[in-house]
Amino acid sequence: MNNHTSVPVGVLGASGYVGQELVRLLACHPEASIAFATAESAAGEWVEGHQLIRAADAPFAKAEIVLSALPHCVSTGFVNEARAAGKRAVDLSADFRLSPAAVYGLTEFTRPQVATALLVANPGCYPTAALLALIPLAQRGLIDASREIIIDAASGVTGAGRNPQRELLFGEVAEDYRAYAVGNTHRHLAELKQSLAREGGFVGDLVFTPHLLPVKRGILETVHVPLTRAFDQAGAESLYEAAYRGEPCVVVTKGALPSLKDVVYRNRAAIGVAPVADVRRPRLTVIVAIDNLVKGAAGQAVQNMNVMLGLPETAGLVC
Amino acid sequence: MNNHTSVPVGVLGASGYVGQELVRLLACHPEASIAFATAESAAGEWVEGHQLIRAADAPFAKAEIVLSALPHCVSTGFVNEARAAGKRAVDLSADFRLSPAAVYGLTEFTRPQVATALLVANPGCYPTAALLALIPLAQRGLIDASREIIIDAASGVTGAGRNPQRELLFGEVAEDYRAYAVGNTHRHLAELKQSLAREGGFVGDLVFTPHLLPVKRGILETVHVPLTRAFDQAGAESLYEAAYRGEPCVVVTKGALPSLKDVVYRNRAAIGVAPVADVRRPRLTVIVAIDNLVKGAAGQAVQNMNVMLGLPETAGLVC
Amino acid sequence: MNNHTSVPVGVLGASGYVGQELVRLLACHPEASIAFATAESAAGEWVEGHQLIRAADAPFAKAEIVLSALPHCVSTGFVNEARAAGKRAVDLSADFRLSPAAVYGLTEFTRPQVATALLVANPGCYPTAALLALIPLAQRGLIDASREIIIDAASGVTGAGRNPQRELLFGEVAEDYRAYAVGNTHRHLAELKQSLAREGGFVGDLVFTPHLLPVKRGILETVHVPLTRAFDQAGAESLYEAAYRGEPCVVVTKGALPSLKDVVYRNRAAIGVAPVADVRRPRLTVIVAIDNLVKGAAGQAVQNMNVMLGLPETAGLVC
Amino acid sequence: MNNHTSVPVGVLGASGYVGQELVRLLACHPEASIAFATAESAAGEWVEGHQLIRAADAPFAKAEIVLSALPHCVSTGFVNEARAAGKRAVDLSADFRLSPAAVYGLTEFTRPQVATALLVANPGCYPTAALLALIPLAQRGLIDASREIIIDAASGVTGAGRNPQRELLFGEVAEDYRAYAVGNTHRHLAELKQSLAREGGFVGDLVFTPHLLPVKRGILETVHVPLTRAFDQAGAESLYEAAYRGEPCVVVTKGALPSLKDVVYRNRAAIGVAPVADVRRPRLTVIVAIDNLVKGAAGQAVQNMNVMLGLPETAGLVC
Repeated sequence: MNNHTSVPVGVLGASGYVGQELVRLLACHPEASIAFATAESAAGEWVEGHQLIRAADAPFAKAEIVLSALPHCVSTGFVNEARAAGKRAVDLSADFRLSPAAVYGLTEFTRPQVATALLVANPGCYPTAALLALIPLAQRGLIDASREIIIDAASGVTGAGRNPQRELLFGEVAEDYRAYAVGNTHRHLAELKQSLAREGGFVGDLVFTPHLLPVKRGILETVHVPLTRAFDQAGAESLYEAAYRGEPCVVVTKGALPSLKDVVYRNRAAIGVAPVADVRRPRLTVIVAIDNLVKGAAGQAVQNMNVMLGLPETAGLVC
Repeated sequence: MNNHTSVPVGVLGASGYVGQELVRLLACHPEASIAFATAESAAGEWVEGHQLIRAADAPFAKAEIVLSALPHCVSTGFVNEARAAGKRAVDLSADFRLSPAAVYGLTEFTRPQVATALLVANPGCYPTAALLALIPLAQRGLIDASREIIIDAASGVTGAGRNPQRELLFGEVAEDYRAYAVGNTHRHLAELKQSLAREGGFVGDLVFTPHLLPVKRGILETVHVPLTRAFDQAGAESLYEAAYRGEPCVVVTKGALPSLKDVVYRNRAAIGVAPVADVRRPRLTVIVAIDNLVKGAAGQAVQNMNVMLGLPETAGLVC
Repeated sequence: MNNHTSVPVGVLGASGYVGQELVRLLACHPEASIAFATAESAAGEWVEGHQLIRAADAPFAKAEIVLSALPHCVSTGFVNEARAAGKRAVDLSADFRLSPAAVYGLTEFTRPQVATALLVANPGCYPTAALLALIPLAQRGLIDASREIIIDAASGVTGAGRNPQRELLFGEVAEDYRAYAVGNTHRHLAELKQSLAREGGFVGDLVFTPHLLPVKRGILETVHVPLTRAFDQAGAESLYEAAYRGEPCVVVTKGALPSLKDVVYRNRAAIGVAPVADVRRPRLTVIVAIDNLVKGAAGQAVQNMNVMLGLPETAGLVC
Repeated sequence: MNNHTSVPVGVLGASGYVGQELVRLLACHPEASIAFATAESAAGEWVEGHQLIRAADAPFAKAEIVLSALPHCVSTGFVNEARAAGKRAVDLSADFRLSPAAVYGLTEFTRPQVATALLVANPGCYPTAALLALIPLAQRGLIDASREIIIDAASGVTGAGRNPQRELLFGEVAEDYRAYAVGNTHRHLAELKQSLAREGGFVGDLVFTPHLLPVKRGILETVHVPLTRAFDQAGAESLYEAAYRGEPCVVVTKGALPSLKDVVYRNRAAIGVAPVADVRRPRLTVIVAIDNLVKGAAGQAVQNMNVMLGLPETAGLVC
């Protein structure tokens, strides 16, 4: 890598919340630069010094790598086109997450495969948080599969996208809070289970319930884990510290639990733990917080891109 | 009850968020009126046409019934004083909730005892919501006690009181969300278990995790219940509809889940249910929403007062 | 008025924010009841016990009076239809506010005309607040017409309606604040000037600048008035107290300035004043707060309806 | 300046909102590093890899320059101590803003004096925004001094500091909006007038009214300027573009008005203009937005520090 040049990056879908965040991060990246950025209704507008063009006009030849924040289903075609043009790609939609054609880019657990991947499927925001909480326990065989894992997740509204919908109006969301996709009906569930099985070897039941928070960005998940043996506070913290030692983007909070403000605008997952008192069988509550637009989307995509290109993993990221 | 007179009510602790709500409700009550209202640092100020006096100066003789929104520990003494003056009382603090000297005022389940009680302990906000969700299942023996009930609760900040604390500043709470009292350490837990055993006959394990929401008022609880047998959507809804038939302050939402905006400023609990797909053993997710200041505090206190006085149960309340 | 019957009221446009508030107020009105309520895309849904029908199917014969919260331009036709059916009406849109066919329903200043009106044009939210601040000064000839009146107004988002628009999404509005219609281009200006001339006799220049607040409801206007002679704090307060003596829906705050939380969910305008120090010519700053959905729309419409029907002016309203 | 070393900077008062922002900016600064950071009640805690010490223990010898975000009145003593130790300083409090001993650091207008200053008084947040809006007009003699300038300013709550006060609780501020220090009583007024006279040559009357917004950060000011001659939209924009040509931290928005989201987390002032229609004498409305913690405090302090040290002016800043 020559210090005096920067890697040209193509951005597909730069006008949604995730795409805007990608552009913001790449604009400050010390070793990458935006080759082109696309949008549809916003084509022609300028963002961070780049004029948006339509995706159909994307000059893939100008980029060394392509990041796609296009909507689900729309992304596949353009990513395949970039690949056909010989470009590596990171797809931030759900389109390739269940596909053997892509490496699942949960960087902390699939780093070697990401490094050499031609196509990386960037994880969903909810699964990113849940998997970082669960895989360390699963890998050590500590989850009691005879009882269900319960995950209650709460996300800021940017997770629902930027298309106008009545239920996302300020007048509806402010001062409100609600669950949705209750009863294990959220589309992220398959991805979560696939990775928990593949990276953690766990195949038991889990219940995932997302909620809509009246905040702009951030996800906090409260993960209730039935354990095969008891841990005290220090033991549980040590386990996570060992699991994430040396990881630049995962922080284990000690003597405090993470909250959204610890992670927003950062490519960081913050994890805290609490053994559960007053129950007969061992249980651990794990709290994990990320910024849905950063570690849950654009930041993790840049992290993956850095790994793919052999750049410092956190280049352009505040962790 | 003579239509032309109104019952004089004494209010202790009228300057906190719960006390303010009590005054607001009583000011519009068609058959009750405020005899006196107390506050300490705000003594001398006027609210809704009443000048606040200090609790030590409370003229108990002027009231027929006393409602206390004084802080925990402080309330006991003044309530005992009111009782000694021969007055019936509703205590909104936690002071009498575990005491045999008081009737636990979860109106829907203890109405007959409330009607004749001299002293009613008004339930805590979190237990009110959880109990309304769980008791119908518990009474029918439907909860599988071999697995834990998991309750994730989220509350608006008025639940934390009106005393200045850094962690409750707008600059800290806005755009944030966090868990607290994790690991079954919340002080409401004993009250919740006591009533679930007494009214519902359930004595198994439960895990209760509260969260702080960036909203002013409202509690939403996501209650994960392991069942002894499976229900489909219609069956689960029917069960709750049967349990709450004729209840003016409990609504079962069908084909939709409750959210805070369905309940704020109302003395209403809204309950929705969803069977959980894709797990091996039966599970039901119950979502319950209340306004922490109304059905979770001042409104339920007025509801109990109405029952005690033989007034229409919802007099002065919007349900 | 017979106590045992209630006036049947037809509501046009019941699914927007103003229409929802109308239904909420009428549902609790002691002497009126909803005869029918209309909506278009929400037709068939139930609100407060009434099933919404389409406006084209409105059974005007069933109502004694019709309140229309239909959108601007759409309202005219249906209101004319109600009038043709012999019904009195209050139109909450802008359609009749500049028309001689309707009485302008700023209740405090046009009460006698409202009482006998067949058609009342309910004032806009911004003009309501501004006029209540300015007319008392204008009527007394105290405004210096050689300098401009400056009005900076800030409104919650429900003032912008409930139709999905990107710029009203929570993700755009939260943590934001902006001016719009700057440079005297807001459509409410003509209405404001017309009434200030007619009720106050003032015809000088004014500059009106609205802003969008990240709150659900409430308007606060900071009205900068050049005066022909100086007032001290007490003198300015006395002037407003005299102007609004006996008015149930206007409060003059003394020793404090009004804020949104003093007025939301109430049919109240709160007004506070401050003479300006450190300038060479006399100036008064007037702060006025209302709930845009109540005193600025639905509440004032009910207030006008009460006057038209000879009911107590605040029946069904919390002032 | 040697590229391989970084300038050691001492930070006084690192635990308030402004101090936290200083630490955040310096932690990412490419040519400066934190030599020490102080706090009182938070002494001992770690922020961005630095353990906070008490101000009384500040090792001034270790720093080349000292930035103080201590409270007003407290700051003077410590800044004088730093100066006595031979260190240059930027004081973010109000203590030196009216003093001839310091250079007023409104970088865009006092850059040469800042470059050689031993002590810079960093401007207040409200004056920064107002001065950037007004000085270009004042310098060109375009403001009509026979009429008053009216400034309505709205600030996020971090401008009020991090000490616990009831009126700053989330439960009080959320969904609220209010004016304060009405009638020209805000303590920033003298500083504003001093700089407007010194840099702009304007000595007429102005009325400044601040408001508290329910947002965490950001200031938007609506500045109403009476002009000596008329400008159309293009002419007014050209004037500001000429005034700020080449300035990296001031943006003139064309065909749009600035809002908080354009400036938060950036060291940027965004300015938009609109001539006022429908008034007899020329008027311009100028809208200016800044982040109160960045361009209004910590960011401008770093900008000034960069100028003092001969570093690139925007080093460590996102503009």
